[in-house]
Amino acid sequence: MRPEEALQRLRTAKVARLATITPRDRPHLVPCCFALAGQVIYSGIDGKPKSGGTLQRVVNLRTRSFFTLLVDHYDEDWSELWWVRVDGRGRIVDDEHERDTAVRLLMEKYSQYGDVPIPGPVLALDIEAVTSWP
Amino acid sequence: MRPEEALQRLRTAKVARLATITPRDRPHLVPCCFALAGQVIYSGIDGKPKSGGTLQRVVNLRTRSFFTLLVDHYDEDWSELWWVRVDGRGRIVDDEHERDTAVRLLMEKYSQYGDVPIPGPVLALDIEAVTSWP
Repeated sequence: MRPEEALQRLRTAKVARLATITPRDRPHLVPCCFALAGQVIYSGIDGKPKSGGTLQRVVNLRTRSFFTLLVDHYDEDWSELWWVRVDGRGRIVDDEHERDTAVRLLMEKYSQYGDVPIPGPVLALDIEAVTSWP
Repeated sequence: MRPEEALQRLRTAKVARLATITPRDRPHLVPCCFALAGQVIYSGIDGKPKSGGTLQRVVNLRTRSFFTLLVDHYDEDWSELWWVRVDGRGRIVDDEHERDTAVRLLMEKYSQYGDVPIPGPVLALDIEAVTSWP
């Protein structure tokens, strides 16, 4: 597909899967909500209870910054399959202004954040390459 | 969710996302079709044209055997979200008998393989741990 089409499908997808690498060099994978802003993807860690401690994806990005993020479509008609993948380096947003921007973008995209605030870290995934298929 | 429920959701899902690590230690991620058989997940590389050379997931598993595979459900009602993740080590199936079994299981699960045969490598992902949420 054309690059503009790939970016459009990425922008409008509601869920992506984020792969990172643990400090012990194992692959790690979670579904995530996200918002695209130019060359950055923001993803929030919302208030839903998980394991309690620091989330693995945050630990991972602090020690191994490389990420890959995938948006795809499955269809019983396999001629309709497609995916868009983004590779780059991720970081935890420290800057308050950038965090405010990211939270605003996520809340604009997902009305659900109205009930589930984003108290935790916000991830910034800086895009280095976009690949798509077909 | 209960472990039996997690396995059932894994078994019946039509698409999963497979994360591996490249020889250069970058995360890699693709959507894939698969079939669960006990403690092994099989995934075929079908005949659809891709990049032409050896697929990256095959290269990756030959040098870094760790994989993680995710099945998830997105819903606008976030109380309906769930995922099941499998971690373990992957390999390319060399044994002809195992390959025949894997291909049969994949063709039973996916009628689409009737038109798109599985001429290439079959991956075997040996399950070491299953995690699920919530």
